[in-house]
Amino acid sequence: MLATTLEDIRRITFREMPDPVIQHPTDAIVKVIASCICGSDLWPYRGDNGPVAQPRTIGHECLGEIVEVGPEVRDFRVGDTVVVPFDHCDNTCAHCLAGNQQACVNYDMTTSGQGELSRVAQADGSLVRIEKPAASELPDLLALSDVFPTGYHAAYSAGVTRGSTAVVVGDGAVGLLGVLSAKILGAERIIAMSRHESRQKLARTFGATDIVAARGEEGEAAVLDMTEGIGADAVLECVGTGAAMVTAFNVVRPGATVGFVGVPHGVELPVGTMFKKNARLAGGLAPVRRHLPDLLPLVLDGTVNPGLVFDSTLPMSQSAEGYRQMDEREAIKVFLTPGA
Amino acid sequence: MLATTLEDIRRITFREMPDPVIQHPTDAIVKVIASCICGSDLWPYRGDNGPVAQPRTIGHECLGEIVEVGPEVRDFRVGDTVVVPFDHCDNTCAHCLAGNQQACVNYDMTTSGQGELSRVAQADGSLVRIEKPAASELPDLLALSDVFPTGYHAAYSAGVTRGSTAVVVGDGAVGLLGVLSAKILGAERIIAMSRHESRQKLARTFGATDIVAARGEEGEAAVLDMTEGIGADAVLECVGTGAAMVTAFNVVRPGATVGFVGVPHGVELPVGTMFKKNARLAGGLAPVRRHLPDLLPLVLDGTVNPGLVFDSTLPMSQSAEGYRQMDEREAIKVFLTPGA
Repeated sequence: MLATTLEDIRRITFREMPDPVIQHPTDAIVKVIASCICGSDLWPYRGDNGPVAQPRTIGHECLGEIVEVGPEVRDFRVGDTVVVPFDHCDNTCAHCLAGNQQACVNYDMTTSGQGELSRVAQADGSLVRIEKPAASELPDLLALSDVFPTGYHAAYSAGVTRGSTAVVVGDGAVGLLGVLSAKILGAERIIAMSRHESRQKLARTFGATDIVAARGEEGEAAVLDMTEGIGADAVLECVGTGAAMVTAFNVVRPGATVGFVGVPHGVELPVGTMFKKNARLAGGLAPVRRHLPDLLPLVLDGTVNPGLVFDSTLPMSQSAEGYRQMDEREAIKVFLTPGA
Repeated sequence: MLATTLEDIRRITFREMPDPVIQHPTDAIVKVIASCICGSDLWPYRGDNGPVAQPRTIGHECLGEIVEVGPEVRDFRVGDTVVVPFDHCDNTCAHCLAGNQQACVNYDMTTSGQGELSRVAQADGSLVRIEKPAASELPDLLALSDVFPTGYHAAYSAGVTRGSTAVVVGDGAVGLLGVLSAKILGAERIIAMSRHESRQKLARTFGATDIVAARGEEGEAAVLDMTEGIGADAVLECVGTGAAMVTAFNVVRPGATVGFVGVPHGVELPVGTMFKKNARLAGGLAPVRRHLPDLLPLVLDGTVNPGLVFDSTLPMSQSAEGYRQMDEREAIKVFLTPGA
């Protein structure tokens, strides 16, 4: 197959790689019908996860059409169109049953989502079947494989409730969908911390009531001013850096929760602030399969349009350009169409 | 007054110090009728909080009899016997009303609890009146000023529920009362991590069903074995060190909560483990006044005896010996009687 491949730090190609194969009887192979680039793909791309030992496929967000199933897959057939959660799970182990599919004992991940084909472990547990979508429906549906449930997980973990005030730290696609998710969960006031005009605009479209463009101490002071010095009822940390985490804990009200979903990179948590405030930390890797039953209907009936985060579309063969656009923050999120 | 005084690192005296005075019209002054040494007093004693700039009184746990009230104190009079929460609060600000008295906008602390007299800020908000106790009742009541509500706060923050499995990391007085608190909150299985025989015994008295004497990886493996590899439903971190925190997050089940109450010293939280597991962190400085309405009745009707953590009794004049006993872990917790 042809697949987006990380050859080395900052070097993406679209080239021939071995087809994925059924490794376990519960696996399925899908033909990718829509894909995209994730902010977390930029970590290995930039070399922040260390050197690239050998060329490897990259990409973990996709919609697919099943082309092969293992002998123990019971609920899906060749030809089914499916949402592929980036985190695969059996959905039957003790952790899955407790809603922690991200800790499934049979956990696996999509690893060639920006290629022509991708393997899904635990097909019965992971996949969700949908009707064959029209091209115009692809972006909203594709967002269900990671970025929307991840933003939702931040809001959910932060404990956003009806009538509450939520702050969203980070204006990447996850942060923007965190805004949308805070809205879904009933937040009355949603303060988006964003410096970029196009992202501010999308944040408002998704439900942000206030924008704070300043960062660091100045931005924190602005949020505290807006909340009469009390702080926010819930904070969504959607970046994954130490600075974002410090801001999150400085603006959350005592006893309230910071929901975090950014893959932590060099984060040292401000434990002293957390101790004094009794500010809680919750969240982490999103259990996508857990949230799909709540989010898919909202997409299907048009209540929400998470696909608005895609502001650039390229064929997979140009994924290197997509990485460049996201790396330089020219694009919020790049949608990739299959093939050349 | 005579007061226990930290003169320098590892040098405690009982000597003449200035009487505390009413500084604000909402203050009260109490005569200390029972006091004790806290594990957290050992941090400055050992020099872990830096050098001692000048001799200062020490001690934040006491029962008192009111000897003076400021002109705005309405609910208490001279002669009242009171439980003095170590953290003083107005109990009326937004944070107090939300149950976060530890973040009160008028926050203050007891600072001469091991002396003859102590100042209480925000007397109306902080204090709880009790009947004049018999000598035999003093230990259980004294425990309400800090150590019992702090242990309870760990269990409460960790989300211990009826029928759950709780692990308590730390066998100091707070950890032991964490065991008792997990029992109060209905935990069916309580695993106490403790190496010391006398503490193991007290843990069992308080409700521990299992003891794990091993520490580090070996201890963690033992807990995971006991929970069929799943981990505990709630973990109480009652130490305040990085090693204890790592153990706590290694034994908590995915999606569950570590309740922490040990004042963090050099703690770097295992954010990668937290992310993958979606393990939550909650707790911090205990809002004593919040928990007193739940705990005082249990003490008054004899349901619980938190005072069992006191295994050494000394007059305040010998507080230096008390510090030595706790520093060398000869005593779990030292009860101090007033005066010479």
